[in-house]
Amino acid sequence: MVLIIKYNSIFVNDIQNELVMAHFPSSAYKNDTICAIATPPGSGAVAILRLSGKDSLSSALKLFEAAASPVTPENIRSHHLYFGKVVFKGEVVDEVLLSYFKAPHSYTAEDVIEISCHGSEFIQQKLIEIFLQLGIRFAEPGEFTMRAFLNGRLDLSQAEGVADLIASQSVTAHRLAMNQMRGGFSTKINELREKLVGFAALIELELDFSEEDVEFANRSQFSKLIREIESELTLLIDSFKVGNVIRKGIPVAIIGKPNAGKSTLLNAILNEEKAIVSEIPGTTRDAIEDTIVIGGYNFRFIDTAGLRATEETIETMGIEKTYDKINEASLILYTCDISETDDQAIEEILEEFKHYIEDENKHFILVGNKIDMLSEIPPHLKEILNLETIFVSAKRKENIHLLAETLVARVKKESISNDVIVSNSRHYEALQLALEAIEAVERAFENNLPTDLIAIDIRQALHNLGTITGEVTTNEVLDTIFSKFCIGK
Amino acid sequence: MVLIIKYNSIFVNDIQNELVMAHFPSSAYKNDTICAIATPPGSGAVAILRLSGKDSLSSALKLFEAAASPVTPENIRSHHLYFGKVVFKGEVVDEVLLSYFKAPHSYTAEDVIEISCHGSEFIQQKLIEIFLQLGIRFAEPGEFTMRAFLNGRLDLSQAEGVADLIASQSVTAHRLAMNQMRGGFSTKINELREKLVGFAALIELELDFSEEDVEFANRSQFSKLIREIESELTLLIDSFKVGNVIRKGIPVAIIGKPNAGKSTLLNAILNEEKAIVSEIPGTTRDAIEDTIVIGGYNFRFIDTAGLRATEETIETMGIEKTYDKINEASLILYTCDISETDDQAIEEILEEFKHYIEDENKHFILVGNKIDMLSEIPPHLKEILNLETIFVSAKRKENIHLLAETLVARVKKESISNDVIVSNSRHYEALQLALEAIEAVERAFENNLPTDLIAIDIRQALHNLGTITGEVTTNEVLDTIFSKFCIGK
Repeated sequence: MVLIIKYNSIFVNDIQNELVMAHFPSSAYKNDTICAIATPPGSGAVAILRLSGKDSLSSALKLFEAAASPVTPENIRSHHLYFGKVVFKGEVVDEVLLSYFKAPHSYTAEDVIEISCHGSEFIQQKLIEIFLQLGIRFAEPGEFTMRAFLNGRLDLSQAEGVADLIASQSVTAHRLAMNQMRGGFSTKINELREKLVGFAALIELELDFSEEDVEFANRSQFSKLIREIESELTLLIDSFKVGNVIRKGIPVAIIGKPNAGKSTLLNAILNEEKAIVSEIPGTTRDAIEDTIVIGGYNFRFIDTAGLRATEETIETMGIEKTYDKINEASLILYTCDISETDDQAIEEILEEFKHYIEDENKHFILVGNKIDMLSEIPPHLKEILNLETIFVSAKRKENIHLLAETLVARVKKESISNDVIVSNSRHYEALQLALEAIEAVERAFENNLPTDLIAIDIRQALHNLGTITGEVTTNEVLDTIFSKFCIGK
Repeated sequence: MVLIIKYNSIFVNDIQNELVMAHFPSSAYKNDTICAIATPPGSGAVAILRLSGKDSLSSALKLFEAAASPVTPENIRSHHLYFGKVVFKGEVVDEVLLSYFKAPHSYTAEDVIEISCHGSEFIQQKLIEIFLQLGIRFAEPGEFTMRAFLNGRLDLSQAEGVADLIASQSVTAHRLAMNQMRGGFSTKINELREKLVGFAALIELELDFSEEDVEFANRSQFSKLIREIESELTLLIDSFKVGNVIRKGIPVAIIGKPNAGKSTLLNAILNEEKAIVSEIPGTTRDAIEDTIVIGGYNFRFIDTAGLRATEETIETMGIEKTYDKINEASLILYTCDISETDDQAIEEILEEFKHYIEDENKHFILVGNKIDMLSEIPPHLKEILNLETIFVSAKRKENIHLLAETLVARVKKESISNDVIVSNSRHYEALQLALEAIEAVERAFENNLPTDLIAIDIRQALHNLGTITGEVTTNEVLDTIFSKFCIGK
């Protein structure tokens, strides 16, 4: 047993070293000093210029004159704010607060300087220019966080959490990103990896002793472990549907015939909630969609111009486009004008739903609009296909709050327990690949395939999990991830 | 002499107290705690929330959990950065850096807390919401600086310098604002005030001993002093022309007939310099003007659509509008198409200039455009009215750099020595009022008016100078000044 444990740890280091050495982008780590404005672009009361790297302190002290006693590399205290002025070529550029974060106790784990200056765009630009003149390089997007990753301060999924955190617009997206940044997701992945590593060690040990035909690994225990890992991976993969939706906004398609009041309904919802409204470009097409936060959830409303263009008939060209949009959506608001919904119209609605309803994951809500046009709601409307029905007047903004509450209730019902949720498509893909490898291991067991083949699949699963936290990575992956960051982070 | 000095100091305090008590807006000073985001609006790597007031520390510590040992009101160090997290109702809102500036060693001279958080708009909004829930008030625009003023950290003209500094877009405007913020202008005003106060003390002393008919003040020395003050005030008032132009941008009107290539010229200048281009609303009308920084100076180009609309004739309705714009401008670029400028056209140009040239302060530059259309420049064009002439091709961007250099050279010639320059119209008006009062004093001396009348005018001059640095002020003035600040400053 002692042998195994020892071998195990050597082996683990061995696998990891091998993978890391093969893939680790040593060239990506540049040993120079970088600078950028870390605060949002534009003018404000205060802006922060951030430096990271070995020359941060010396270059900053070339310019900084403390208001109190002089600050030198010898007497400067880490994590202390010094008031003074930045002087360049005899001219006062600004009065600033300077702080020094001595390596490794900084965001990047390198020497970091932060200069808090007046937030004029001129001063921000001037400070950057001065540091460039002193030989400091302007940082790439996300380079501070990339350095934090390369220096082991964060793993890759935590680094991605930082970017998600900054982009998050709703309380749920914020919670998800915060958990990821703080390592909640990494912990889960590392647990899975550790289980696999222990398993892999035993399998590889068998390989070394293969001529002696020993089985260090108890096959039935292993099958159990593999099924366990499989089930955990599946849970994580399934959580992506929720996670992705939280991050990008819950897609809601408003469909309906012309003049059903779709636009008025959307405006009523947006206005009713007085919430953050923004325009985000669609992911697959260049259309514009409206997002709005209701009850802490980010809803993304999708315009279904397609259906509108087809007039009364749905069996036309436009239908495909509408289908696409409906496929994108997880919630569909079917809007109808109840003042014009007679028996024939109901037939048509039923006909339409036959096209969509095959996807069980779609949730339909029937919105009976224009209640202001009738004295009472026609009883036959209340039970179409057992659909949940909300009667509103978009024009008069009546019952819009009921609709909003229904949307939130639907989403809450969907949300899985507040455990680890995958929200990043890169992680989702890596988990799927890991699951495929694990399934291959399982099949190999069932078919009594040779140990060396099993070992390959386990290595593959380990590799895929390692890409999530960045223990295995490539320059390309890093570039892709960090290029999505803002400058200064 | 002892008597006089003593009396003098009592008197000075007396005048100042009286004015201050009468005008000082004690109600403007609110004793509560305020918060705001100090960094530019929007999303970025880092944002800063700032608190000022007596509850800053206690409210921040209700939320902050330091990563290292707990931070308490007893052990917290001023000017130190603490890493930790903000937790509200059991949920981690963000990982932050917290710093405490113990009164009076802070921007406002009150207890100040700065929380450096991730720059997501959601987090910024969330933090503000939390502090509002804790009973902190959202700051008015400029309220931090107003508190700094009310607490004596800055005088009023320095506070105004802060706003100018943040708004400054060119190196010259920045230099001006920096000098004002750092008290260069205040020093000048205080020097003048001190001279006047010493003078006033003697005059008032005479009033007290009026029945004995003594003259403590040597009349000829006083006349000399008054003339000195007068001349210094005049210098400051005259500097406003330069100062205002530096702050708002040097107004350059491009005039010329249709098809002379005005727009092409402007675009060529903007493009040539690849400089900061912005759109600012005009001050007197709602038109849009283009500003651009060339050689460290901010130029404001004024569109002369009026002239364009009048076609070939200048004696039409449009001329007045053009006149207005030319009056606004300190530099005029008269653009003509040299390929169409024959003798008659030159006559017309000469005729036009007769209208404008009466104002000696206007500087004209003749821009002979479209040199690409001719093989050589017609010699008669070179000597129109001895105007400085630059030949360019706006279309091909030829010689545009020469024009830019000429503009900068003209401005440099205009700039007065780098002494104190008045750039604020409020100061300009106060200085004019002070000058008027001083001139009244001078006349009173000449006409041997009674001392009590002279004393009134001196008090008036002191009052007017005091309004500049804010030793005398009213709620209305403060409100007007600080409402122009951004929130968080």
